[in-house]
Amino acid sequence: MIIVLKPHPAPEVVEHVLERIAALGLTPHLSQGVSRTIIGVIGDEAKLQVQPLQAIPGVEQVVPILKPFKLASREFHPEDSVFTVKGVQVGGGRLAVIAGPCAIESESLLFEVAERVRRAGANLLRGGAFKPRTSPYSFQGLGQDGLKILRAAGDHFGMAVVTEVMDPRQVEVVDRYADILQVGARNMQNFDLLKECGRTRMPVLLKRGLSATVRDLLMSAEYILSEGNRQVILCERGIRTFEDSTRNTLDLSVVPNIQGQSHLPIVVDPSHATGRPDLIPAMARAAIAAGADGIHVEVHSCPEKALSDGPQALVPDQFDRLMDEIRPLAELLGRSIDVCAGEPAACAPC
Amino acid sequence: MIIVLKPHPAPEVVEHVLERIAALGLTPHLSQGVSRTIIGVIGDEAKLQVQPLQAIPGVEQVVPILKPFKLASREFHPEDSVFTVKGVQVGGGRLAVIAGPCAIESESLLFEVAERVRRAGANLLRGGAFKPRTSPYSFQGLGQDGLKILRAAGDHFGMAVVTEVMDPRQVEVVDRYADILQVGARNMQNFDLLKECGRTRMPVLLKRGLSATVRDLLMSAEYILSEGNRQVILCERGIRTFEDSTRNTLDLSVVPNIQGQSHLPIVVDPSHATGRPDLIPAMARAAIAAGADGIHVEVHSCPEKALSDGPQALVPDQFDRLMDEIRPLAELLGRSIDVCAGEPAACAPC
Amino acid sequence: MIIVLKPHPAPEVVEHVLERIAALGLTPHLSQGVSRTIIGVIGDEAKLQVQPLQAIPGVEQVVPILKPFKLASREFHPEDSVFTVKGVQVGGGRLAVIAGPCAIESESLLFEVAERVRRAGANLLRGGAFKPRTSPYSFQGLGQDGLKILRAAGDHFGMAVVTEVMDPRQVEVVDRYADILQVGARNMQNFDLLKECGRTRMPVLLKRGLSATVRDLLMSAEYILSEGNRQVILCERGIRTFEDSTRNTLDLSVVPNIQGQSHLPIVVDPSHATGRPDLIPAMARAAIAAGADGIHVEVHSCPEKALSDGPQALVPDQFDRLMDEIRPLAELLGRSIDVCAGEPAACAPC
Amino acid sequence: MIIVLKPHPAPEVVEHVLERIAALGLTPHLSQGVSRTIIGVIGDEAKLQVQPLQAIPGVEQVVPILKPFKLASREFHPEDSVFTVKGVQVGGGRLAVIAGPCAIESESLLFEVAERVRRAGANLLRGGAFKPRTSPYSFQGLGQDGLKILRAAGDHFGMAVVTEVMDPRQVEVVDRYADILQVGARNMQNFDLLKECGRTRMPVLLKRGLSATVRDLLMSAEYILSEGNRQVILCERGIRTFEDSTRNTLDLSVVPNIQGQSHLPIVVDPSHATGRPDLIPAMARAAIAAGADGIHVEVHSCPEKALSDGPQALVPDQFDRLMDEIRPLAELLGRSIDVCAGEPAACAPC
Repeated sequence: MIIVLKPHPAPEVVEHVLERIAALGLTPHLSQGVSRTIIGVIGDEAKLQVQPLQAIPGVEQVVPILKPFKLASREFHPEDSVFTVKGVQVGGGRLAVIAGPCAIESESLLFEVAERVRRAGANLLRGGAFKPRTSPYSFQGLGQDGLKILRAAGDHFGMAVVTEVMDPRQVEVVDRYADILQVGARNMQNFDLLKECGRTRMPVLLKRGLSATVRDLLMSAEYILSEGNRQVILCERGIRTFEDSTRNTLDLSVVPNIQGQSHLPIVVDPSHATGRPDLIPAMARAAIAAGADGIHVEVHSCPEKALSDGPQALVPDQFDRLMDEIRPLAELLGRSIDVCAGEPAACAPC
Repeated sequence: MIIVLKPHPAPEVVEHVLERIAALGLTPHLSQGVSRTIIGVIGDEAKLQVQPLQAIPGVEQVVPILKPFKLASREFHPEDSVFTVKGVQVGGGRLAVIAGPCAIESESLLFEVAERVRRAGANLLRGGAFKPRTSPYSFQGLGQDGLKILRAAGDHFGMAVVTEVMDPRQVEVVDRYADILQVGARNMQNFDLLKECGRTRMPVLLKRGLSATVRDLLMSAEYILSEGNRQVILCERGIRTFEDSTRNTLDLSVVPNIQGQSHLPIVVDPSHATGRPDLIPAMARAAIAAGADGIHVEVHSCPEKALSDGPQALVPDQFDRLMDEIRPLAELLGRSIDVCAGEPAACAPC
Repeated sequence: MIIVLKPHPAPEVVEHVLERIAALGLTPHLSQGVSRTIIGVIGDEAKLQVQPLQAIPGVEQVVPILKPFKLASREFHPEDSVFTVKGVQVGGGRLAVIAGPCAIESESLLFEVAERVRRAGANLLRGGAFKPRTSPYSFQGLGQDGLKILRAAGDHFGMAVVTEVMDPRQVEVVDRYADILQVGARNMQNFDLLKECGRTRMPVLLKRGLSATVRDLLMSAEYILSEGNRQVILCERGIRTFEDSTRNTLDLSVVPNIQGQSHLPIVVDPSHATGRPDLIPAMARAAIAAGADGIHVEVHSCPEKALSDGPQALVPDQFDRLMDEIRPLAELLGRSIDVCAGEPAACAPC
Repeated sequence: MIIVLKPHPAPEVVEHVLERIAALGLTPHLSQGVSRTIIGVIGDEAKLQVQPLQAIPGVEQVVPILKPFKLASREFHPEDSVFTVKGVQVGGGRLAVIAGPCAIESESLLFEVAERVRRAGANLLRGGAFKPRTSPYSFQGLGQDGLKILRAAGDHFGMAVVTEVMDPRQVEVVDRYADILQVGARNMQNFDLLKECGRTRMPVLLKRGLSATVRDLLMSAEYILSEGNRQVILCERGIRTFEDSTRNTLDLSVVPNIQGQSHLPIVVDPSHATGRPDLIPAMARAAIAAGADGIHVEVHSCPEKALSDGPQALVPDQFDRLMDEIRPLAELLGRSIDVCAGEPAACAPC
C-alpha cells in the first residue's frame, strides 16, 4: 500500500501516519521529495485495507497494491478450478452448455425444451422457479412447484439442473431440488444470500451485476469461497452502458481478464447480454473463441407466449444451429463438450 | 402500446398480431403505409405489457405508452405523499435531515455523533447495524447489538432512527428497533426484501441502485407500495459512470424528474454520491436548491478510525457549518426543517 | 510516480527499471518487501509521464502522483481566474448568464430572443452559426451570415456574444464576429481546434465531452492555455450514462471538484444536460447553489419550430421566471449578476 | 413516426398537431382511447424527423419508426459493400489485418515493424503521423515527415497504408500519401472532418467514438457517404464504461448488430479496446468468431520505449502467434486473408 501525502505536509502529519502504520505492526518506508512525500508499506496489506487512512487530514491518496481478494486469486490457487456436476465437468478445457427456458412455466413446456436442448448437445438444464422481475405485476415464477418440475425434467433427461435463488430463505429448498444454485445479476451484492450459498456444498453460478467491476465480481465470489464453498462458476451477462440497441453490453474481455487473475471457471450468457436472438449466435461463438468455459443460453418453444424474457429466447431450431456452429469451433480451440451422463433409458422421449 | 411491424409484412403476420390483441379483449388500430405498418392499442396496457409481443416474427418494435408503475405515479395520487415519523414530517415542504455515522461502532461513538448532529439541526438519526460490504473481510456491523444502541440513542435524543435492512430475515428484528427501514443501493432490486418491507407498516428509505434508471427505482417502490405500505422515501445517492474522481456520479436531475411523475418524497445523499467531504456541502446545497425533500449525510467524530466509509464522512464541525448554510437556503426556497420532537429532558447531554 | 513490480521480480528487472529512471536524471527509491517490490520516483514527474514504463515486462502498475496538467492547476495559479468581456466579469463571484437560441435562424428570431433575455437579465448572448448535428440532413447553421446577425444583435443590445467554432478553418472568421469562442462537447478533444483557439486572444468556452473525465476536460483546457491563451471558461453540460429519461446526466459535482484543483471559471448548461424544459429551472438553481460561475440556457420564442434542439429550449416567459428565481439565490450566496454594459440607446427596442 | 399526446389533450392540441402534419403534406392517423391519444404518420418520415414536434405543449413523446440513416442502411444497399485497396479486399468474406505501430517514430522502427507484420500475414500497414494525444506535452507525431516514411514503407513492402487525419486542413496532404484515411474515435463527430473525407475518393476507416451509440456511428458514416464517398470501413474500438481494469470496454455485439442493418464492413481494434497485450489475442479471436471483417492491432518492437501507447502494443513475436491462431479460425468460419499484393522484389528485406 502506498500513501501519498498532500504537498508540503507538516511534520506532525508525517509522524501521525507513520505511527498509525507502526501501531498495526507494519514497517513504513518514507520517501520525501521536493514536491511530494510518499510512504510505502509492504507486508500484510489486509490489515491496512480496512483502515480508512485516506480520511487522515494531509493524506491525498491511498493506493492499494495487493488485490483485495485471496481465495479467488490465482496466487492462492494457481491451477484452474475444475468441478464435476453429475458427470459433467466444468472448467479444465470442457465447455458447459447451459440451456433452457427463462422461467419454468409448466411441465410440458420444460420437458419439450429440455428434450430439444439435450438432443442438441446442452449438458446442463436451466429454468427459473423464483424470478426476479422489475415489475411486481409480472409473473414471479412457480416457486417450489417449479423446482419439482425442474428436478423431474433433470432426472428424466439425465441432466444436472441450474436454478436461481433470490432469497436466503430459499436456499434450503432450492438446495433440495437443484444441482447448481444460480445467484442472479441483481443479487450479486446480496451478501447475506452469498453467505448462505457459501454454506451449502453446491456449485454456485454467480452472475456479474449490471454495474459490477471485475474486482466487485471477484469480491462477491470471495464471499462464497470464504464460507467454505469452493465451487463458484462466474458468469458474464452484460453490463449497463449508454448503448441502447442491445439490452446490455457484453464485456467479453472479462473472460481472459478473469482467467489471468483467478482460477474460477467463467461462462458467458449472450441471451441476457444482448436481449436479441439475432445477435446471440455470434456472441456465443465469440465467447468460445475468447476462451470461455461455457455458455448460458435461453431457449423457449414459443417465445411470443413466454411468461418471462420471451423476446430474447432462441427457438429450439435456432439452438440446434448454434450447437452445430459451436462444436467445430470448440474442437479447433482444443475444447470438448461433455455429453450429460443420463441413462439412455431416461432419455426415451428424445 | 404501439406495435411496429418489419417492412412489408405478410398478411398472416398482421392477422396474427391482431388476433393476439383481440384475444386479450383489446381493440387494435391498424395503420398501413407504404413503408411501414403500425398497430396501436389503446386501453388497458397492463394486460399487454406482460405479453412478449416483440418475440413474434415480423414484429420490429413494441413501444409502451403508459408507465409501468401505478401506485407510485402522480396520476394515481396527484398530491405529494407526506408522512410523519415521531413528529418529523417528511415531504410537503419540510426538509428531512438524516445524519449519523455510516456504521454503529459503539455506544459512545453513536451518542457523541447523535448529540452533535441533533444540536446542529438534524432531525433523523442514521446508523448501520447490518453493513453490506464489498469485502467479506471488512467490518460487517454489530447486528442486533447495534440496533439496541441505535434505539437507545434515538430515545435519548428524541430522534427517530433509520437503519439498513439487508436480508428479509432481518426485517422483523429491525422493525422492532427502528423507525424507518433503509433498503440500500445494492438491494434496490432484492425483490423479496422489498416485499417483506412492504408488509411492514414502517416508512422505507429506498436508495437508488448504482445502475438503476428512474423507471427501475419507481418500479422497486411499486413493489413496496403494492404490498400495502404507502410510506416510501426515495433516495438519490449517485450512479456508476466512467468518471473516477468521485465515488459515484450524483444525478440531481432525478429530483424534479421524479417529482414530476411520482408523489413520493425524494432525498439526496451527497456522502455516498461523491465519497469526498470536500464536495459534500456544495452537493447538499445543490440538492436543496433542486427541490429535494431532504438530505442524508454521514458524520463521524474520527473518520480516520471509522470502521466503514470513513473517508467520506464529515466531522461534526463540518456538519455544523453545512447546517448553517442549509438553513437560509431552505428558508429562501420556502421550506422548513422540523426540529425533532424529543423531550428536552431526554436531551440533557446536549 | 510509483512503479509496482509483479511478485517475485528477477533482479534484472529491478535493475532495468532503476536504470531507465536514472537515465532520465531522476532518483529512484527502492522498497523491497516479501510479497512486493515498489519503486518510488519523486521529482520531475513530467519526464516520466511520457515514458511507457508500464510496458516493461515485470512491471505490474505505474501510479502517477502528480496531476498531468499544469497551467490549468491551482498550484500554478492559486487565485481564481477572472476575465472581463465587454464589461461583464466572468469568475470572481459574478455569475455569467449566457442565453439565446440554439441556432441563429434569422435576424428577426435572434433579435426577438436577445431582447427578451437581455431584459430578463442575461448578460451574454449565445447563438450557433456553425452547428454540429448528428445527421447530415439536419439544419447545419447559417455560417458567416449567422455570425453577422449575431454581431448585429450583440451590438444592438450591448451584449457580448458567444458562438461555436467547429473547424480550425473557421476560427479566423468567428474571431472577427464573436466575443467568446465556444468549443462544443463533440470537439472537446479536437486538438487542432483547441490549439487554433489557443492562438487567438479570445476567451474560450470549453464544453465537457460526453465521455470526458474531469481530468480529460482539464487536459483539453491545458491545450488552449499552453498556446498562450489564458482565458478559458469550462462548461459542464452532462455526460452520457445509462439513464435514458434525460438527454444526458448532469454531473454537478464537477463544480466544486474543478474549483478545488483549477483556477478556471466553470459554468453549467442545464439545457443540453437534461434536454427537458421541465427540469432546466431546478438544475439552474442547483448549479448556482453548487457554486457555479454561471449558467448557459437555450431560449427560443417558438421551440416547436426551432431548426435545432427545439424540445430543450425555454420560452422567454419561462426564462423570465428562472431569472426571478436565480437572483435572490445568487444574492444569498454572495454572488452578483453583472448587467451587460450596452448603451441604453442601443437598447431602445427593449 | 408516432406522436403520443399527454393524457386528456385539449381538442385544440390535437387539432394543432394534425395541422402541423398536414402542412408537411403527410397524412396523420388519429387513434383516441380512454387514457391516451396517439397520432401515427406513415410516409416520408425524413420530413418529420427534422421537426421538433416534441416541443409542442401537449405532446408527451415522439417515437421515430424509420432509421435516420439511409445510404448506410441495408434497405438502401442490400448487399455487403466490398472495396479493394491495392489488391486487398475489404469485406465480402475476406479479413483485413491492419497492423503497425501506434505512431510513426522513425524510418527504422516503421520498416522493422512493417517487415515483421507483413511476414506474419498482415495485409494493411498502419502508423500515425498526426497523433491526437490527451496531453499537449505528449509526442504529437512527425506530421508530413511521418507520412513520407509511411508511404516509403508501404511501397517497400507492397502494403497499402492507413493513417489518421485529425484536421480538415490535413486531408489534402494525407490523401497524397495514404491509401486509407483513418478518422479516430475522438473525431467521430468532427463533422467538418467527415465531410472533407467524404469529398475524397479514398476509403475511410471510421472509428467508433468512446460514447457513440451504434446509431451515432452510422450517422457519422452517413456524413461521409452523403458527400459521395461510398468506401467507409467501420471500426469498433471499445466504449467508455465504469469498468476500469481495461482501457475501454470492447462491445463485440456491434459486429452482428451493424451487419444486420448496414452494408458497410466493420473491423475490430482490440488494442485500444483493452489497452492490455494479455487480452488482445483473445479479443482478436473473439472478433473474428463474431464475424468481423478484420482486425486492427498495434505492434511495436520495443513497447517500453514507444512514444505513444506503448503499453498496449504487441511485440512482433506475439503478433506472429496471434496470426497463427487467427488463420485456422478464419478458415473454419469460411473467411480468407488476402496476401498483400506487393511485388516480391519490394519485399527483399523480409
